[in-house]
Amino acid sequence: MPSRDHGDPGDAPSVPPPLSPIANASRPSAAEEARTIAHSTNTGTLATLTDAGDPWASFVTYGLLGGAPVLCVSNLAEHGRNLAHDPRASIAIVAPSSESDPLASGRVTLAGVVEAPSGDELAAAREAHLNAVAAAKYYIDYSDFTLWVLRVQRVRWVGGYGRMESTTGEAYSAASPDPVTPHAATAIAHLNADHADSLTAMAKVLGGYPDTTAATCTGADRYGLDLRVVTDRGIAYTRIGYAAPIDSIDQLRSATVELAHRARQG
Amino acid sequence: MPSRDHGDPGDAPSVPPPLSPIANASRPSAAEEARTIAHSTNTGTLATLTDAGDPWASFVTYGLLGGAPVLCVSNLAEHGRNLAHDPRASIAIVAPSSESDPLASGRVTLAGVVEAPSGDELAAAREAHLNAVAAAKYYIDYSDFTLWVLRVQRVRWVGGYGRMESTTGEAYSAASPDPVTPHAATAIAHLNADHADSLTAMAKVLGGYPDTTAATCTGADRYGLDLRVVTDRGIAYTRIGYAAPIDSIDQLRSATVELAHRARQG
Repeated sequence: MPSRDHGDPGDAPSVPPPLSPIANASRPSAAEEARTIAHSTNTGTLATLTDAGDPWASFVTYGLLGGAPVLCVSNLAEHGRNLAHDPRASIAIVAPSSESDPLASGRVTLAGVVEAPSGDELAAAREAHLNAVAAAKYYIDYSDFTLWVLRVQRVRWVGGYGRMESTTGEAYSAASPDPVTPHAATAIAHLNADHADSLTAMAKVLGGYPDTTAATCTGADRYGLDLRVVTDRGIAYTRIGYAAPIDSIDQLRSATVELAHRARQG
Repeated sequence: MPSRDHGDPGDAPSVPPPLSPIANASRPSAAEEARTIAHSTNTGTLATLTDAGDPWASFVTYGLLGGAPVLCVSNLAEHGRNLAHDPRASIAIVAPSSESDPLASGRVTLAGVVEAPSGDELAAAREAHLNAVAAAKYYIDYSDFTLWVLRVQRVRWVGGYGRMESTTGEAYSAASPDPVTPHAATAIAHLNADHADSLTAMAKVLGGYPDTTAATCTGADRYGLDLRVVTDRGIAYTRIGYAAPIDSIDQLRSATVELAHRARQG
Protein backbone atom coordinates (compact mmCIF):
# COMPACT_ATOMS: atom_id res chain seq x y z
CA MET A 1 0.00 0.00 0.00
CA PRO A 2 2.32 2.79 -1.19
CA SER A 3 -0.28 5.43 -0.33
CA ARG A 4 0.23 4.68 3.36
CA ASP A 5 3.76 6.07 3.04
CA HIS A 6 2.44 9.62 2.82
CA GLY A 7 3.38 12.02 5.56
CA ASP A 8 -0.09 11.90 7.05
CA PRO A 9 -0.74 15.00 9.18
CA GLY A 10 -3.19 12.90 11.19
CA ASP A 11 -6.62 13.87 9.95
CA ALA A 12 -7.01 11.65 6.90
CA PRO A 13 -9.77 9.04 7.11
CA SER A 14 -8.47 5.75 8.52
CA VAL A 15 -9.37 2.37 7.05
CA PRO A 16 -10.17 -0.38 9.57
CA PRO A 17 -8.08 -3.55 9.03
CA PRO A 18 -9.70 -6.97 8.65
CA LEU A 19 -10.37 -8.88 11.89
CA SER A 20 -10.14 -12.38 10.38
CA PRO A 21 -8.32 -13.92 7.40
CA ILE A 22 -9.57 -13.13 3.89
CA ALA A 23 -10.54 -16.48 2.37
CA ASN A 24 -9.33 -15.75 -1.16
CA ALA A 25 -7.89 -12.34 -1.98
CA SER A 26 -6.81 -13.24 -5.50
CA ARG A 27 -7.20 -10.40 -7.97
CA PRO A 28 -5.90 -9.39 -11.41
CA SER A 29 -2.19 -8.70 -11.76
CA ALA A 30 -0.98 -5.19 -12.59
CA ALA A 31 -0.39 -6.35 -16.17
CA GLU A 32 -3.94 -7.68 -16.40
CA GLU A 33 -5.37 -4.51 -14.88
CA ALA A 34 -3.40 -2.45 -17.39
CA ARG A 35 -4.63 -4.54 -20.34
CA THR A 36 -8.21 -4.22 -19.09
CA ILE A 37 -7.98 -0.43 -18.81
CA ALA A 38 -6.36 -0.11 -22.26
CA HIS A 39 -9.20 -2.25 -23.62
CA SER A 40 -11.92 -0.16 -21.95
CA THR A 41 -11.81 2.91 -24.21
CA ASN A 42 -10.35 4.31 -27.43
CA THR A 43 -8.98 7.66 -26.23
CA GLY A 44 -5.92 8.64 -24.26
CA THR A 45 -3.33 11.34 -23.93
CA LEU A 46 0.01 10.99 -25.63
CA ALA A 47 3.25 12.45 -24.29
CA THR A 48 5.88 13.18 -26.94
CA LEU A 49 8.99 15.34 -27.21
CA THR A 50 9.17 18.61 -29.12
CA ASP A 51 12.23 19.57 -31.17
CA ALA A 52 13.52 21.31 -28.03
CA GLY A 53 12.98 18.17 -25.95
CA ASP A 54 10.01 19.63 -24.09
CA PRO A 55 7.19 17.27 -23.03
CA TRP A 56 4.05 17.64 -25.15
CA ALA A 57 0.69 16.25 -24.03
CA SER A 58 -2.03 15.77 -26.66
CA PHE A 59 -5.33 13.98 -26.97
CA VAL A 60 -5.34 10.92 -29.25
CA THR A 61 -7.52 8.02 -30.30
CA TYR A 62 -6.09 4.51 -30.50
CA GLY A 63 -6.81 0.90 -31.37
CA LEU A 64 -5.01 -2.10 -29.88
CA LEU A 65 -2.84 -4.67 -31.63
CA GLY A 66 -2.10 -7.36 -29.06
CA GLY A 67 -2.12 -4.69 -26.38
CA ALA A 68 0.07 -2.25 -28.30
CA PRO A 69 -1.67 1.10 -28.92
CA VAL A 70 -2.00 1.90 -32.63
CA LEU A 71 -2.13 5.63 -33.31
CA CYS A 72 -3.15 7.37 -36.52
CA VAL A 73 -1.88 10.94 -36.50
CA SER A 74 -1.26 13.66 -39.05
CA ASN A 75 2.32 14.60 -39.80
CA LEU A 76 0.99 18.19 -39.84
CA ALA A 77 -0.01 17.96 -36.18
CA GLU A 78 2.48 18.76 -33.44
CA HIS A 79 2.44 15.24 -31.97
CA GLY A 80 2.90 13.78 -35.47
CA ARG A 81 5.96 15.94 -36.09
CA ASN A 82 7.26 15.02 -32.63
CA LEU A 83 6.98 11.25 -33.22
CA ALA A 84 8.69 11.54 -36.62
CA HIS A 85 11.54 13.37 -34.92
CA ASP A 86 11.87 11.24 -31.76
CA PRO A 87 10.03 7.91 -31.31
CA ARG A 88 9.93 8.04 -27.52
CA ALA A 89 6.35 8.29 -26.29
CA SER A 90 3.95 7.31 -23.55
CA ILE A 91 0.18 7.22 -23.40
CA ALA A 92 -2.01 7.73 -20.36
CA ILE A 93 -5.39 6.00 -20.46
CA VAL A 94 -8.16 6.52 -17.89
CA ALA A 95 -10.89 3.90 -17.46
CA PRO A 96 -14.40 5.30 -17.88
CA SER A 97 -15.85 5.76 -14.40
CA SER A 98 -18.88 7.10 -12.66
CA GLU A 99 -16.90 7.83 -9.48
CA SER A 100 -17.35 11.39 -8.27
CA ASP A 101 -13.72 11.46 -7.11
CA PRO A 102 -11.55 11.41 -10.25
CA LEU A 103 -8.52 10.04 -8.39
CA ALA A 104 -10.52 6.90 -7.54
CA SER A 105 -10.49 5.97 -11.25
CA GLY A 106 -8.21 3.30 -12.67
CA ARG A 107 -5.57 4.56 -15.09
CA VAL A 108 -2.43 3.39 -16.74
CA THR A 109 0.65 4.83 -18.43
CA LEU A 110 2.19 2.77 -21.24
CA ALA A 111 5.69 3.98 -22.16
CA GLY A 112 8.05 2.99 -24.95
CA VAL A 113 8.87 3.93 -28.52
CA VAL A 114 6.68 4.12 -31.60
CA GLU A 115 7.42 2.36 -34.85
CA ALA A 116 5.72 2.66 -38.22
CA PRO A 117 4.52 -0.88 -38.97
CA SER A 118 5.06 -2.47 -42.35
CA GLY A 119 3.83 -5.46 -44.35
CA ASP A 120 1.33 -7.69 -42.58
CA GLU A 121 1.63 -5.71 -39.38
CA LEU A 122 0.67 -2.52 -41.22
CA ALA A 123 -2.53 -4.15 -42.45
CA ALA A 124 -3.30 -5.51 -38.96
CA ALA A 125 -2.55 -2.15 -37.34
CA ARG A 126 -4.81 -0.34 -39.82
CA GLU A 127 -7.63 -2.77 -39.06
CA ALA A 128 -7.06 -2.50 -35.30
CA HIS A 129 -7.28 1.29 -35.46
CA LEU A 130 -10.39 1.27 -37.66
CA ASN A 131 -12.11 -1.28 -35.41
CA ALA A 132 -11.65 1.02 -32.43
CA VAL A 133 -12.11 4.43 -34.11
CA ALA A 134 -14.86 4.28 -36.72
CA ALA A 135 -14.43 7.90 -37.84
CA ALA A 136 -10.82 7.16 -38.83
CA LYS A 137 -12.12 5.84 -42.16
CA TYR A 138 -12.39 9.46 -43.25
CA TYR A 139 -8.68 10.23 -42.82
CA ILE A 140 -6.66 7.03 -42.27
CA ASP A 141 -5.67 6.91 -45.96
CA TYR A 142 -4.78 10.60 -46.25
CA SER A 143 -1.17 10.85 -47.37
CA ASP A 144 -0.22 13.04 -44.40
CA PHE A 145 -1.41 10.50 -41.80
CA THR A 146 0.89 7.87 -40.32
CA LEU A 147 0.04 4.76 -38.33
CA TRP A 148 2.31 4.26 -35.35
CA VAL A 149 2.50 1.21 -33.08
CA LEU A 150 3.67 1.94 -29.53
CA ARG A 151 6.12 -0.78 -28.46
CA VAL A 152 5.33 -0.85 -24.74
CA GLN A 153 8.47 -1.17 -22.62
CA ARG A 154 7.23 -0.02 -19.24
CA VAL A 155 3.82 0.15 -17.56
CA ARG A 156 2.56 2.05 -14.55
CA TRP A 157 -0.89 1.07 -13.30
CA VAL A 158 -2.87 3.00 -10.69
CA GLY A 159 -6.09 1.36 -9.54
CA GLY A 160 -7.32 4.26 -7.45
CA TYR A 161 -6.18 5.24 -3.97
CA GLY A 162 -3.49 2.99 -2.57
CA ARG A 163 -3.48 0.41 -5.37
CA MET A 164 -0.65 0.90 -7.84
CA GLU A 165 2.14 -1.12 -9.33
CA SER A 166 4.69 -0.98 -12.14
CA THR A 167 5.21 -3.81 -14.57
CA THR A 168 7.16 -4.61 -17.71
CA GLY A 169 6.22 -4.40 -21.36
CA GLU A 170 6.69 -8.16 -21.58
CA ALA A 171 4.22 -8.88 -18.75
CA TYR A 172 1.77 -6.39 -20.27
CA SER A 173 2.00 -7.98 -23.71
CA ALA A 174 1.55 -11.51 -22.28
CA ALA A 175 -1.49 -10.61 -20.17
CA SER A 176 -5.07 -10.56 -21.42
CA PRO A 177 -7.80 -8.00 -20.74
CA ASP A 178 -10.42 -9.11 -18.25
CA PRO A 179 -13.28 -11.02 -19.89
CA VAL A 180 -15.76 -10.19 -17.13
CA THR A 181 -15.21 -6.56 -16.08
CA PRO A 182 -16.50 -4.86 -19.26
CA HIS A 183 -19.82 -6.74 -19.01
CA ALA A 184 -20.35 -6.76 -15.25
CA ALA A 185 -22.32 -3.55 -14.64
CA THR A 186 -25.78 -5.14 -14.84
CA ALA A 187 -24.81 -8.08 -12.63
CA ILE A 188 -23.26 -5.74 -10.05
CA ALA A 189 -26.41 -3.62 -9.97
CA HIS A 190 -28.47 -6.79 -9.49
CA LEU A 191 -26.25 -8.01 -6.63
CA ASN A 192 -26.54 -4.66 -4.87
CA ALA A 193 -30.29 -4.29 -5.45
CA ASP A 194 -31.44 -7.82 -4.65
CA HIS A 195 -28.71 -9.63 -2.71
CA ALA A 196 -27.48 -7.19 -0.09
CA ASP A 197 -27.78 -9.87 2.62
CA SER A 198 -25.55 -12.26 0.67
CA LEU A 199 -22.93 -9.56 0.15
CA THR A 200 -22.96 -8.80 3.88
CA ALA A 201 -22.55 -12.52 4.66
CA MET A 202 -19.64 -12.74 2.19
CA ALA A 203 -17.92 -9.76 3.82
CA LYS A 204 -18.40 -11.28 7.31
CA VAL A 205 -17.41 -14.88 6.57
CA LEU A 206 -15.05 -14.66 3.57
CA GLY A 207 -13.90 -11.04 3.49
CA GLY A 208 -12.26 -10.63 6.90
CA TYR A 209 -14.86 -8.22 8.32
CA PRO A 210 -17.10 -10.13 10.78
CA ASP A 211 -18.35 -6.74 12.03
CA THR A 212 -19.83 -5.77 8.65
CA THR A 213 -23.14 -3.94 8.88
CA ALA A 214 -23.58 -3.42 5.10
CA ALA A 215 -21.64 -4.36 1.97
CA THR A 216 -21.76 -3.11 -1.62
CA CYS A 217 -20.21 -4.76 -4.65
CA THR A 218 -18.02 -2.21 -6.46
CA GLY A 219 -16.42 -4.45 -9.08
CA ALA A 220 -16.25 -7.92 -10.60
CA ASP A 221 -13.52 -9.54 -12.66
CA ARG A 222 -12.33 -13.02 -13.63
CA TYR A 223 -11.02 -13.72 -10.11
CA GLY A 224 -13.66 -12.34 -7.78
CA LEU A 225 -15.67 -9.45 -6.38
CA ASP A 226 -14.60 -6.13 -4.87
CA LEU A 227 -16.69 -5.18 -1.84
CA ARG A 228 -17.06 -1.90 -0.02
CA VAL A 229 -17.74 -2.75 3.59
CA VAL A 230 -19.35 -0.61 6.29
CA THR A 231 -18.44 -1.41 9.89
CA ASP A 232 -18.75 0.46 13.17
CA ARG A 233 -14.97 0.96 12.88
CA GLY A 234 -15.33 2.75 9.53
CA ILE A 235 -15.45 1.93 5.83
CA ALA A 236 -13.13 -0.66 4.28
CA TYR A 237 -12.62 -2.44 0.96
CA THR A 238 -12.13 -6.17 0.66
CA ARG A 239 -11.91 -8.95 -1.82
CA ILE A 240 -14.05 -12.07 -2.28
CA GLY A 241 -12.34 -14.51 -4.66
CA TYR A 242 -14.42 -17.11 -6.49
CA ALA A 243 -13.80 -20.83 -5.87
CA ALA A 244 -12.01 -20.78 -9.24
CA PRO A 245 -11.36 -18.09 -11.86
CA ILE A 246 -14.04 -17.67 -14.55
CA ASP A 247 -13.54 -16.73 -18.16
CA SER A 248 -16.85 -15.22 -19.22
CA ILE A 249 -19.68 -13.14 -17.86
CA ASP A 250 -21.97 -16.17 -18.27
CA GLN A 251 -20.15 -17.84 -15.38
CA LEU A 252 -20.51 -14.93 -12.98
CA ARG A 253 -23.91 -15.98 -11.66
CA SER A 254 -22.90 -19.51 -10.65
CA ALA A 255 -19.64 -18.23 -9.15
CA THR A 256 -21.47 -15.70 -6.95
CA VAL A 257 -24.18 -18.22 -6.00
CA GLU A 258 -21.38 -20.50 -4.77
CA LEU A 259 -19.89 -17.63 -2.76
CA ALA A 260 -23.27 -16.82 -1.21
CA HIS A 261 -23.84 -20.48 -0.33
CA ARG A 262 -20.42 -20.78 1.29
CA ALA A 263 -20.92 -17.53 3.22
CA ARG A 264 -24.29 -18.66 4.59
CA GLN A 265 -22.75 -21.95 5.75
CA GLY A 266 -20.02 -20.00 7.55
CA MET B 1 -8.88 25.65 -42.01
CA PRO B 2 -5.67 23.64 -41.50
CA SER B 3 -7.57 20.37 -41.81
CA ARG B 4 -8.20 21.07 -45.51
CA ASP B 5 -4.46 20.68 -46.08
CA HIS B 6 -4.66 16.89 -45.71
CA GLY B 7 -3.73 14.78 -48.72
CA ASP B 8 -7.39 13.87 -49.33
CA PRO B 9 -7.60 10.64 -51.35
CA GLY B 10 -10.96 11.87 -52.64
CA ASP B 11 -13.52 9.99 -50.63
CA ALA B 12 -13.81 12.08 -47.49
CA PRO B 13 -17.17 13.77 -46.93
CA SER B 14 -17.22 17.23 -48.46
CA VAL B 15 -18.66 20.23 -46.68
CA PRO B 16 -20.82 22.53 -48.82
CA PRO B 17 -19.70 26.18 -48.69
CA PRO B 18 -22.12 28.98 -47.80
CA LEU B 19 -24.08 30.49 -50.71
CA SER B 20 -24.55 33.93 -49.16
CA PRO B 21 -22.61 36.08 -46.69
CA ILE B 22 -22.69 35.09 -43.02
CA ALA B 23 -24.21 38.05 -41.18
CA ASN B 24 -22.02 37.85 -38.08
CA ALA B 25 -19.46 35.05 -37.76
CA SER B 26 -17.89 36.36 -34.59
CA ARG B 27 -16.81 33.63 -32.21
CA PRO B 28 -14.47 33.18 -29.23
CA SER B 29 -10.75 33.59 -29.82
CA ALA B 30 -8.41 30.62 -29.43
CA ALA B 31 -7.31 32.03 -26.07
CA GLU B 32 -10.95 32.30 -24.93
CA GLU B 33 -11.73 28.78 -26.17
CA ALA B 34 -8.69 27.47 -24.29
CA ARG B 35 -9.71 29.22 -21.06
CA THR B 36 -13.25 27.83 -21.39
CA ILE B 37 -12.00 24.26 -21.87
CA ALA B 38 -9.58 24.55 -18.94
CA HIS B 39 -12.49 25.84 -16.85
CA SER B 40 -14.82 22.99 -17.89
CA THR B 41 -13.30 20.18 -15.82
CA ASN B 42 -10.75 19.37 -13.11
CA THR B 43 -8.83 16.51 -14.73
CA GLY B 44 -6.20 16.37 -17.43
CA THR B 45 -3.10 14.52 -18.47
CA LEU B 46 0.31 15.86 -17.62
CA ALA B 47 3.40 15.35 -19.76
CA THR B 48 6.69 15.50 -17.86
CA LEU B 49 10.25 14.33 -18.43
CA THR B 50 11.81 11.30 -16.74
CA ASP B 51 15.42 11.35 -15.54
CA ALA B 52 16.36 9.92 -18.95
CA GLY B 53 14.44 12.70 -20.72
CA ASP B 54 11.66 10.40 -21.87
CA PRO B 55 8.12 11.82 -22.13
CA TRP B 56 5.84 10.64 -19.32
CA ALA B 57 2.04 10.97 -19.53
CA SER B 58 0.02 10.76 -16.30
CA PHE B 59 -3.48 11.53 -15.12
CA VAL B 60 -3.80 14.54 -12.81
CA THR B 61 -6.38 16.73 -11.15
CA TYR B 62 -6.02 20.51 -11.18
CA GLY B 63 -7.49 23.77 -10.04
CA LEU B 64 -7.06 27.12 -11.81
CA LEU B 65 -5.35 30.27 -10.56
CA GLY B 66 -6.07 32.97 -13.13
CA GLY B 67 -5.97 30.29 -15.81
CA ALA B 68 -2.77 28.67 -14.57
CA PRO B 69 -3.27 24.99 -13.67
CA VAL B 70 -2.47 24.25 -10.02
CA LEU B 71 -1.34 20.67 -9.46
CA CYS B 72 -1.01 18.82 -6.15
CA VAL B 73 1.18 15.77 -6.64
CA SER B 74 3.15 13.43 -4.40
CA ASN B 75 6.92 13.57 -4.59
CA LEU B 76 6.72 9.75 -4.35
CA ALA B 77 4.84 9.55 -7.65
CA GLU B 78 6.70 9.40 -10.93
CA HIS B 79 5.31 12.72 -12.22
CA GLY B 80 6.16 14.36 -8.90
CA ARG B 81 9.77 13.21 -9.12
CA ASN B 82 9.88 14.33 -12.74
CA LEU B 83 8.67 17.87 -11.96
CA ALA B 84 11.16 18.21 -9.11
CA HIS B 85 13.94 17.22 -11.51
CA ASP B 86 12.85 19.25 -14.59
CA PRO B 87 10.09 21.89 -14.44
CA ARG B 88 9.13 21.60 -18.11
CA ALA B 89 5.57 20.30 -18.43
CA SER B 90 2.41 20.46 -20.47
CA ILE B 91 -1.14 19.46 -19.68
CA ALA B 92 -3.78 18.23 -22.13
CA ILE B 93 -7.38 18.92 -21.15
CA VAL B 94 -10.42 17.54 -22.98
CA ALA B 95 -13.79 19.26 -22.64
CA PRO B 96 -16.55 16.92 -21.41
CA SER B 97 -18.61 15.93 -24.42
CA SER B 98 -21.46 13.71 -25.44
CA GLU B 99 -20.17 13.48 -29.03
CA SER B 100 -19.87 9.89 -30.25
CA ASP B 101 -16.78 10.82 -32.26
CA PRO B 102 -14.02 11.63 -29.73
CA LEU B 103 -12.05 13.73 -32.21
CA ALA B 104 -15.02 16.13 -32.44
CA SER B 105 -14.34 17.17 -28.82
CA GLY B 106 -12.65 20.42 -27.90
CA ARG B 107 -9.27 20.07 -26.25
CA VAL B 108 -6.27 22.15 -25.37
CA THR B 109 -2.61 21.69 -24.53
CA LEU B 110 -1.08 24.21 -22.11
CA ALA B 111 2.72 24.09 -22.12
CA GLY B 112 5.30 25.81 -19.95
CA VAL B 113 7.19 25.28 -16.74
CA VAL B 114 5.97 24.57 -13.23
CA GLU B 115 6.94 26.61 -10.18
CA ALA B 116 6.27 25.92 -6.52
CA PRO B 117 4.32 29.00 -5.38
CA SER B 118 5.22 30.81 -2.17
CA GLY B 119 3.71 33.38 0.18
CA ASP B 120 0.33 34.77 -0.84
CA GLU B 121 0.40 32.84 -4.09
CA LEU B 122 0.85 29.55 -2.20
CA ALA B 123 -2.28 30.24 -0.17
CA ALA B 124 -4.21 31.22 -3.30
CA ALA B 125 -2.96 28.15 -5.19
CA ARG B 126 -3.94 25.88 -2.30
CA GLU B 127 -7.43 27.37 -2.25
CA ALA B 128 -7.74 27.13 -6.05
CA HIS B 129 -6.84 23.44 -5.99
CA LEU B 130 -9.18 22.65 -3.09
CA ASN B 131 -12.05 24.52 -4.76
CA ALA B 132 -11.71 22.34 -7.84
CA VAL B 133 -10.75 19.00 -6.21
CA ALA B 134 -12.71 18.46 -3.02
CA ALA B 135 -11.00 15.16 -2.15
CA ALA B 136 -7.62 16.91 -2.06
CA LYS B 137 -8.41 17.95 1.52
CA TYR B 138 -7.34 14.43 2.53
CA TYR B 139 -3.79 14.74 1.18
CA ILE B 140 -2.97 18.35 0.27
CA ASP B 141 -1.20 18.87 3.61
CA TYR B 142 0.76 15.59 3.52
CA SER B 143 4.44 16.42 3.73
CA ASP B 144 5.22 14.50 0.54
CA PHE B 145 2.78 16.52 -1.59
CA THR B 146 3.80 19.64 -3.49
CA LEU B 147 1.65 22.31 -5.11
CA TRP B 148 2.89 23.33 -8.54
CA VAL B 149 1.64 26.23 -10.66
CA LEU B 150 2.06 25.72 -14.41
CA ARG B 151 3.31 29.00 -15.95
CA VAL B 152 1.66 28.71 -19.35
CA GLN B 153 3.96 29.84 -22.17
CA ARG B 154 2.31 28.27 -25.19
CA VAL B 155 -1.22 27.07 -25.98
CA ARG B 156 -2.56 24.77 -28.67
CA TRP B 157 -6.34 24.69 -28.99
CA VAL B 158 -8.26 22.17 -31.12
CA GLY B 159 -11.99 22.80 -31.39
CA GLY B 160 -12.81 19.57 -33.22
CA TYR B 161 -12.31 18.82 -36.90
CA GLY B 162 -10.82 21.72 -38.83
CA ARG B 163 -10.87 24.28 -36.02
CA MET B 164 -7.50 24.71 -34.34
CA GLU B 165 -5.13 27.51 -33.50
CA SER B 166 -2.07 28.21 -31.41
CA THR B 167 -1.79 31.15 -29.07
CA THR B 168 0.53 32.59 -26.48
CA GLY B 169 0.61 32.23 -22.74
CA GLU B 170 0.04 36.00 -22.49
CA ALA B 171 -3.14 35.87 -24.59
CA TYR B 172 -4.35 32.83 -22.61
CA SER B 173 -3.74 34.55 -19.29
CA ALA B 174 -5.51 37.72 -20.43
CA ALA B 175 -8.60 35.93 -21.77
CA SER B 176 -11.59 34.89 -19.68
CA PRO B 177 -13.57 31.64 -19.76
CA ASP B 178 -16.92 31.83 -21.50
CA PRO B 179 -19.72 32.91 -19.13
CA VAL B 180 -22.46 31.29 -21.24
CA THR B 181 -21.13 27.93 -22.53
CA PRO B 182 -21.07 26.04 -19.19
CA HIS B 183 -24.73 26.86 -18.56
CA ALA B 184 -26.13 26.58 -22.08
CA ALA B 185 -27.16 22.90 -22.31
CA THR B 186 -30.76 23.39 -21.22
CA ALA B 187 -31.27 26.40 -23.48
CA ILE B 188 -29.78 24.53 -26.45
CA ALA B 189 -32.07 21.55 -25.84
CA HIS B 190 -35.04 23.95 -25.68
CA LEU B 191 -34.04 25.67 -28.95
CA ASN B 192 -33.74 22.31 -30.71
CA ALA B 193 -36.95 20.87 -29.27
CA ASP B 194 -39.26 23.86 -29.63
CA HIS B 195 -37.74 26.34 -32.09
CA ALA B 196 -36.51 24.25 -35.03
CA ASP B 197 -38.24 26.63 -37.47
CA SER B 198 -36.43 29.63 -36.03
CA LEU B 199 -33.08 27.86 -36.26
CA THR B 200 -33.76 26.98 -39.91
CA ALA B 201 -34.70 30.60 -40.64
CA MET B 202 -31.47 31.79 -38.92
CA ALA B 203 -29.39 29.40 -41.04
CA LYS B 204 -31.12 30.56 -44.24
CA VAL B 205 -31.10 34.31 -43.64
CA LEU B 206 -28.13 34.95 -41.32
CA GLY B 207 -25.99 31.83 -41.66
CA GLY B 208 -25.16 31.78 -45.37
CA TYR B 209 -27.19 28.67 -46.20
CA PRO B 210 -30.43 29.74 -48.00
CA ASP B 211 -30.87 26.09 -49.03
CA THR B 212 -31.14 24.86 -45.40
CA THR B 213 -33.71 22.11 -44.88
CA ALA B 214 -33.03 21.62 -41.14
CA ALA B 215 -30.77 23.22 -38.54
CA THR B 216 -29.64 22.13 -35.07
CA CYS B 217 -27.97 24.29 -32.44
CA THR B 218 -24.75 22.56 -31.31
CA GLY B 219 -23.30 25.26 -29.08
CA ALA B 220 -23.81 28.69 -27.54
CA ASP B 221 -21.27 31.14 -26.15
CA ARG B 222 -20.96 34.84 -25.37
CA TYR B 223 -20.81 35.77 -29.08
CA GLY B 224 -23.42 33.58 -30.73
CA LEU B 225 -24.75 30.17 -31.69
CA ASP B 226 -23.15 27.26 -33.54
CA LEU B 227 -25.53 25.63 -36.01
CA ARG B 228 -25.32 22.29 -37.80
CA VAL B 229 -27.09 22.78 -41.11
CA VAL B 230 -28.60 20.14 -43.41
CA THR B 231 -28.85 21.04 -47.10
CA ASP B 232 -29.36 19.04 -50.28
CA ARG B 233 -25.67 19.70 -50.91
CA GLY B 234 -24.64 18.00 -47.64
CA ILE B 235 -24.12 18.92 -44.00
CA ALA B 236 -22.37 22.13 -42.97
CA TYR B 237 -21.63 24.09 -39.81
CA THR B 238 -22.21 27.81 -39.51
CA ARG B 239 -22.25 30.63 -37.05
CA ILE B 240 -25.02 33.00 -35.98
CA GLY B 241 -23.59 35.91 -34.01
CA TYR B 242 -25.83 37.85 -31.64
CA ALA B 243 -26.50 41.54 -32.26
CA ALA B 244 -24.00 42.17 -29.44
CA PRO B 245 -21.98 39.90 -27.12
CA ILE B 246 -23.69 38.82 -23.90
CA ASP B 247 -22.08 38.20 -20.55
CA SER B 248 -24.43 35.84 -18.77
CA ILE B 249 -26.76 32.94 -19.49
CA ASP B 250 -29.66 35.18 -18.42
CA GLN B 251 -29.17 37.22 -21.60
CA LEU B 252 -29.25 34.22 -23.94
CA ARG B 253 -33.02 34.15 -24.36
CA SER B 254 -33.36 37.78 -25.46
CA ALA B 255 -30.34 37.47 -27.75
CA THR B 256 -31.83 34.44 -29.52
CA VAL B 257 -35.30 36.01 -29.70
CA GLU B 258 -33.70 38.97 -31.49
CA LEU B 259 -31.95 36.58 -33.91
CA ALA B 260 -35.21 34.75 -34.63
CA HIS B 261 -37.02 38.04 -35.19
CA ARG B 262 -34.33 39.25 -37.58
CA ALA B 263 -34.31 35.92 -39.45
CA ARG B 264 -38.09 35.99 -39.93
CA GLN B 265 -37.91 39.54 -41.31
CA GLY B 266 -35.25 38.36 -43.79
